[in-house]
Amino acid sequence: MTPHRIADVAAALGLEHAGDGDLVVRAPAPPAQAGPEELAVAMDPKFLGDLAKGRARAAVLPAGADWQGLGLAAAIFAPRARYAMAGLTARFQHPLDAPAGVHPSAIVDPSAQIGPGASIGPFVVIGRDVTIGANARILSHVSIGAGARIGDDALLMEGVRIGARTRIGHRFVAHPNAVAGADGFSFVTPEPGAVEAAKDRGASDVFGAAATVYVRIHSLGSVAIGDDVELGAGACLDRGTLKDTTIGNGTKIDNLVQVGHNVTVGEHCLLCAHVGIAGSAVIQDRVVLGGKAGVADHLTIGHDSVVAGGSGVGANVPPRSVMIGSPAIKRDEFNRMWMAMRRLPRAMDKLRELTGGLR
Amino acid sequence: MTPHRIADVAAALGLEHAGDGDLVVRAPAPPAQAGPEELAVAMDPKFLGDLAKGRARAAVLPAGADWQGLGLAAAIFAPRARYAMAGLTARFQHPLDAPAGVHPSAIVDPSAQIGPGASIGPFVVIGRDVTIGANARILSHVSIGAGARIGDDALLMEGVRIGARTRIGHRFVAHPNAVAGADGFSFVTPEPGAVEAAKDRGASDVFGAAATVYVRIHSLGSVAIGDDVELGAGACLDRGTLKDTTIGNGTKIDNLVQVGHNVTVGEHCLLCAHVGIAGSAVIQDRVVLGGKAGVADHLTIGHDSVVAGGSGVGANVPPRSVMIGSPAIKRDEFNRMWMAMRRLPRAMDKLRELTGGLR
Amino acid sequence: MTPHRIADVAAALGLEHAGDGDLVVRAPAPPAQAGPEELAVAMDPKFLGDLAKGRARAAVLPAGADWQGLGLAAAIFAPRARYAMAGLTARFQHPLDAPAGVHPSAIVDPSAQIGPGASIGPFVVIGRDVTIGANARILSHVSIGAGARIGDDALLMEGVRIGARTRIGHRFVAHPNAVAGADGFSFVTPEPGAVEAAKDRGASDVFGAAATVYVRIHSLGSVAIGDDVELGAGACLDRGTLKDTTIGNGTKIDNLVQVGHNVTVGEHCLLCAHVGIAGSAVIQDRVVLGGKAGVADHLTIGHDSVVAGGSGVGANVPPRSVMIGSPAIKRDEFNRMWMAMRRLPRAMDKLRELTGGLR
Repeated sequence: MTPHRIADVAAALGLEHAGDGDLVVRAPAPPAQAGPEELAVAMDPKFLGDLAKGRARAAVLPAGADWQGLGLAAAIFAPRARYAMAGLTARFQHPLDAPAGVHPSAIVDPSAQIGPGASIGPFVVIGRDVTIGANARILSHVSIGAGARIGDDALLMEGVRIGARTRIGHRFVAHPNAVAGADGFSFVTPEPGAVEAAKDRGASDVFGAAATVYVRIHSLGSVAIGDDVELGAGACLDRGTLKDTTIGNGTKIDNLVQVGHNVTVGEHCLLCAHVGIAGSAVIQDRVVLGGKAGVADHLTIGHDSVVAGGSGVGANVPPRSVMIGSPAIKRDEFNRMWMAMRRLPRAMDKLRELTGGLR
Repeated sequence: MTPHRIADVAAALGLEHAGDGDLVVRAPAPPAQAGPEELAVAMDPKFLGDLAKGRARAAVLPAGADWQGLGLAAAIFAPRARYAMAGLTARFQHPLDAPAGVHPSAIVDPSAQIGPGASIGPFVVIGRDVTIGANARILSHVSIGAGARIGDDALLMEGVRIGARTRIGHRFVAHPNAVAGADGFSFVTPEPGAVEAAKDRGASDVFGAAATVYVRIHSLGSVAIGDDVELGAGACLDRGTLKDTTIGNGTKIDNLVQVGHNVTVGEHCLLCAHVGIAGSAVIQDRVVLGGKAGVADHLTIGHDSVVAGGSGVGANVPPRSVMIGSPAIKRDEFNRMWMAMRRLPRAMDKLRELTGGLR
Repeated sequence: MTPHRIADVAAALGLEHAGDGDLVVRAPAPPAQAGPEELAVAMDPKFLGDLAKGRARAAVLPAGADWQGLGLAAAIFAPRARYAMAGLTARFQHPLDAPAGVHPSAIVDPSAQIGPGASIGPFVVIGRDVTIGANARILSHVSIGAGARIGDDALLMEGVRIGARTRIGHRFVAHPNAVAGADGFSFVTPEPGAVEAAKDRGASDVFGAAATVYVRIHSLGSVAIGDDVELGAGACLDRGTLKDTTIGNGTKIDNLVQVGHNVTVGEHCLLCAHVGIAGSAVIQDRVVLGGKAGVADHLTIGHDSVVAGGSGVGANVPPRSVMIGSPAIKRDEFNRMWMAMRRLPRAMDKLRELTGGLR
């Protein structure tokens, strides 16, 4: 990584510094492992003690920390630690191996329009009538289907699949083997099938072979993705049936997430790893779905809600809710219920005593 | 998309129509967004009001709807809405960019037999002794291992991995980056390990380093897939150990599903996204596993059963059951239990009053 | 598969045999399906009856079984059945189609160092300064990023993605489309966002648009993987932020598992399919996480613990624990709680009687 002066790092992050601003550091590092040319990152007071274990001469510290007492030659002060990490890691990030130009092994349809400054890697396939903005970095083995449109500054890692007709905004990042624009999982039986019977009648006695030969409902819609969206490794976004599946601006999607057909995800949402959203659900703006959270089809999760990891949402959620459990309920109610459940075995014993035997 | 006459669309779907059968439509669309050359899809009565928001002159409507009162020039009547969607979307689906022939960049082993009409895309690798039926469409970056056999009319999307010796029926569809024929996750320790001890003795006090150096059990079996099967994006099917992992005719598998080694999945099952089936389980015919449902190893799920999304099946399930929860129990029992749990905190208070303090 | 003499198979497995040691078998098979040239595998006494359904002349049997009474010409005796399967399947495994040498279509950076005996398949891309040990088998469509180091005897199946700077020990196996070294899912808002507010205050009334424009924290660390590790199909390992995400020696990771940034996984762990481990969690040695188990961020799971499938770990777990549920609790406590819950509806009725009506 490129070396940086302490004063320059501080200025770039908009932070104060103290001591030798000319000191040069090559990379940030955890304080206990940091070498003399590294910048120890000890923004949490509990890590200050680790500085003595490492050999750093400079560190990023909580505001007001006694840098001289810690034996440092220079310090940068970060009042909001995690936010400083964003700037710090951006400044020191490893350069990507993506030289400008089209690798000779790539297959780019003559009708495709690629903006200036693009890097198209080995074995990339770009289809008919694709449009890609400026400065795209498209790494090896990516495929982009016919008619797809991608904005400026896209970063598509190895093996990403962009389906035909997908429309994507600026600054899109897709991690290895992510898929945007697979067909929806939508089938129908000529007569009502097992799921419909179970939903409608609470019974399964009507099931039978005749009812369950599935016929495909094709996905004529596509996927529309806003600006500043990230799509994690192996994550999948399905096309809509008639309209598009949509992902709003600023939404970040983690690895192995599944977003079903016709789903609408709002702006600035976080979908953590293994989240699954069934068909036609609506996730409003600024919703956070914890890892492995599931959302049933056709539901709405109101804006600014948080669903705890592993929860299963089976009913509409009002805005600004904090939900947990399977089926998910409001956190306060879940906590009361859970405390009662933990005490339940003893309570049942008590009740048995009272009633003189309860089976 | 190709334009179609209303009368032709109706005839192809086996449905009645009214009004101007010569009216031409270019694509189906949601009623509120439909333009004058689009066919509004308003088969659910609740969407009829949306027709006035769009500009459609023709629509698919519930049987008996007042098409003239809705201001339409033509209408098609669909008594079973979702089934009509299958025919409708099939008729208007986007053509796939898969020209017949073998792309010059593809590497096809000379011993492979490819049926007539096939399209083999860029950077495809087809191994030794592979057999593929007629009219296959194999998109870019697919790999097909030695000895695999695939029937007629296969559609393998970008990045699909077909393992060596996999056998697949007709009309197979695999979505991007799906994997059929990975090795099973099967390991053994020379002495009984942590899992076996936990299962056998309910205790973990025998655990120790010596017990847990894992040795691999290799997968000599393969995967056998019937006709009319779909495999979702990123989904994984593991090989069997001695015999094959099998997927029955007509079964549809959604994105990111995991099917373990030696599993038998019957005919006409639906496995929704993120379903996981552990080794040697048996899923009988016409079972529906909701999203994120898990099935423990060696269990049997009886035919025509439905397991709700997010449930964890830990015991055999009789046929025609509707199961929910983790561990999964019958839905009726779950509903009673869940209602009691919701009232539990108040009941505990009541009990405490009765007993004059309970802890 | 290569034919083997019964005496040779027994000797290779360190097991006793009886009868005609010169009998030649071509493959192991389930007893009911075994043909006359196959070795029936009937190590579990419950499968002995199946021998009569098949035509095997030789079998692997439990110690002391009456091989002559079962009509066999030869038998091998396996006192520990599953362990014998490891040796047996290793001996009969199908050879991999991976000829030594670099396929002409592969793109290997001139600075990369590849050990002797390697097989580099079609459309493989190996970046700058990559080091790979002896006897690597790298199948088609794999990409290996700049600076990655991989030990001897690696097996990378089709479509595997190894990120830049990843370091991997000997005998690594990665199944199709696995990803080692994706960027971490780590974002921060300039002001505290929804998740932080929900955690800190138990309330969501501070949420708002201003708080949730996410800024990326880049992953400067990488992934460090020990010896004898397996990574399942579609599984994802994220890079660390400053330090490396680490996977210890002998750990086996199943399909579609997600391991977040900064996570430490110890030695000889088993992570079953769909397991998800959130950022900075520590999984100590010899831990088994059942299928779909989730672990929240920054937690520690003590060594030799077992977490049941589908469980959600929300607090630190002491060593040698057996955990189940969501949130996960000790198995004994879960079992008592679950039994009480199953009896709860009836107990509530009883309580209602006692109190003369309880809502």
